Amino acid sequence: MTKFAIGVDLGGTNLRIAAVDEHGRLLDKGTTDTNVARGRDLVITEMSEAISSLVAKLKDSGTIVGVGVGVPGIIDLETGMSRESPNLPGWNDYPVRDEIERRLRAPVILENDANAAALGEKWLGAAREVDDMAILTLGTGVGGGLVLHGRIWHGMNGMAGEFGHITVDPNGPRCKCGSFGCAEVFASATAVVRMANESIAGGNAPQLSRLEKSDPEFSAKLVYNLAKNGDAPSREIFRKVGVGLGILMGDLVNGLNLPMYVVGGGMASAWDLFSPSMFEEVLKRSMVYAATAPVAPNAQKPAEAEGAAAEVHPRASGKKTIITKAMLGSDAGLYGAARLPMLTSSEPSWGPGIMARRRA
Amino acid sequence: MTKFAIGVDLGGTNLRIAAVDEHGRLLDKGTTDTNVARGRDLVITEMSEAISSLVAKLKDSGTIVGVGVGVPGIIDLETGMSRESPNLPGWNDYPVRDEIERRLRAPVILENDANAAALGEKWLGAAREVDDMAILTLGTGVGGGLVLHGRIWHGMNGMAGEFGHITVDPNGPRCKCGSFGCAEVFASATAVVRMANESIAGGNAPQLSRLEKSDPEFSAKLVYNLAKNGDAPSREIFRKVGVGLGILMGDLVNGLNLPMYVVGGGMASAWDLFSPSMFEEVLKRSMVYAATAPVAPNAQKPAEAEGAAAEVHPRASGKKTIITKAMLGSDAGLYGAARLPMLTSSEPSWGPGIMARRRA
Repeated sequence: MTKFAIGVDLGGTNLRIAAVDEHGRLLDKGTTDTNVARGRDLVITEMSEAISSLVAKLKDSGTIVGVGVGVPGIIDLETGMSRESPNLPGWNDYPVRDEIERRLRAPVILENDANAAALGEKWLGAAREVDDMAILTLGTGVGGGLVLHGRIWHGMNGMAGEFGHITVDPNGPRCKCGSFGCAEVFASATAVVRMANESIAGGNAPQLSRLEKSDPEFSAKLVYNLAKNGDAPSREIFRKVGVGLGILMGDLVNGLNLPMYVVGGGMASAWDLFSPSMFEEVLKRSMVYAATAPVAPNAQKPAEAEGAAAEVHPRASGKKTIITKAMLGSDAGLYGAARLPMLTSSEPSWGPGIMARRRA
Repeated sequence: MTKFAIGVDLGGTNLRIAAVDEHGRLLDKGTTDTNVARGRDLVITEMSEAISSLVAKLKDSGTIVGVGVGVPGIIDLETGMSRESPNLPGWNDYPVRDEIERRLRAPVILENDANAAALGEKWLGAAREVDDMAILTLGTGVGGGLVLHGRIWHGMNGMAGEFGHITVDPNGPRCKCGSFGCAEVFASATAVVRMANESIAGGNAPQLSRLEKSDPEFSAKLVYNLAKNGDAPSREIFRKVGVGLGILMGDLVNGLNLPMYVVGGGMASAWDLFSPSMFEEVLKRSMVYAATAPVAPNAQKPAEAEGAAAEVHPRASGKKTIITKAMLGSDAGLYGAARLPMLTSSEPSWGPGIMARRRA
């Protein structure tokens, strides 16, 4: 009988859930229209109900291995508490794991959402072939995850990988975390909306201004659509996203010298718009990248790329630094969350008794 | 018979050499008045001669295990080449290991100088009790070293740990590495001299100005002495060093969540002058630090520290983040270099035959 696990991705704006089998096949996807802003207790209750109904629906399709949940912000892995979650107001010092387990009456594995995304890309995505990698997830905030020797690097108490709060410009805008100029205030969907509003306030962005007035849900996606259609102020915003990401990426490459850095999350779909300035910036910022870049990394000159590599980086030999888009897109965290219980137990951690009790 | 190794620390300005036994006891220290600026071939020749005479001197005191050499900049560990060394002009793409081995006629283990310092502090210094730690070495440049699970994290081709070239201020002064506003341009001895010259040019630093005119070797050490004597413009320089270091430290704590960060190198002796602003900045920059700081880290209010800890950091529980001064001072790299051959071989890698051949 097929073994499967439930993965939950709790984002800064919504909640997604999936059942994935041990080979990475998606069995089912549950959706909830939970608005995370409506409060933690409601979110936890609706999440637990969605998990239970998905498990009930699949009860004849396989054996459940467990439930993994990706949560944004800093989690204390020992206690299962959400410690600092700038994008989930009111979730600080909240016993997330206990609250889910109490409703579900079954054990749950908690993980930082970006760590889960790293695990997803490592399992089924862009990082399948490497043992060491980092991920940046660009969503409401900017998450980070680090995999070393094939395993998530949690740090001493599970708080490692907060790459979104690495300082990109010490005099930059205030970040929800309390600092200033974090990567997150340049490279998140929230940052795109802020920069769009700044452009509108500057008075030189007529199309953005029109859009903002006509659409009550003025979002990064709308700014992206304008940029794709050639609107210069909107394109400039994504150029700035790339510069911020490039500075952050340069820090990571200089500090860690990993073979692969993956950019995921919903905003990664704007790759074509931000990656040229990102590659330009990381090349300028990181001598380690300059020494290990695979091809002329200026994506604006793709024709030169392969052929000119030796000339552009005369000392680039041996292993290369790959910076690439996530293959699983914004589903990386969902697959990674489902992977969690598969890694921690070879035995099913949910016996039928437990499920029967829950369903009774 | 005692086993010992030779450690060499090749700094941006001078060269030091020591014989250390397997228990970390210093048997002898060789000094050379080599000025690194005089050129790589001369440096390598004088280094090799100093090693040989130290080995000859100690030939009846023990068995030599090997030679370890710490070199600043990026080293390709596979080829033993110095790839990028911003503080050793002319050493880019120089086959350091081959050149030393050719003169010595014996194998040599090369390591980045800050990695060697990390190893020294891990073996005999501040980090003896932890398995995971990072070091920043403040000297002519700012070096970095990362130890994970008790071993140096080299990255995919030995270039990891370049923390001195993490961006602190993207619009800051140009760095030798080609980027702008790297940690190195705020927290190195070179940066102290530059900032002192900027203060003098600003016209409001009479004591610095007098010193600069009277002393041909206007150095960070002299600025330090003035600051210790209370000169406000000199103290301001070290405050800025602390701010730069604090931003960098915040990046490391947010990214890696290690139990310990050690500050070493010659400039670490100015700890009392830069650490208050460093602690203030890292607390502001890093939510991970805020959640794990051991005591109220504002060193300017030591009386409050222990008692006020719970109040200042209500969520500080469990494991703490320690940021501390290197115990071995500027000798960390020397001891760490000597440790290298002890780690890589349990058998003496230099048989008497090889040494006899050399001495013949």
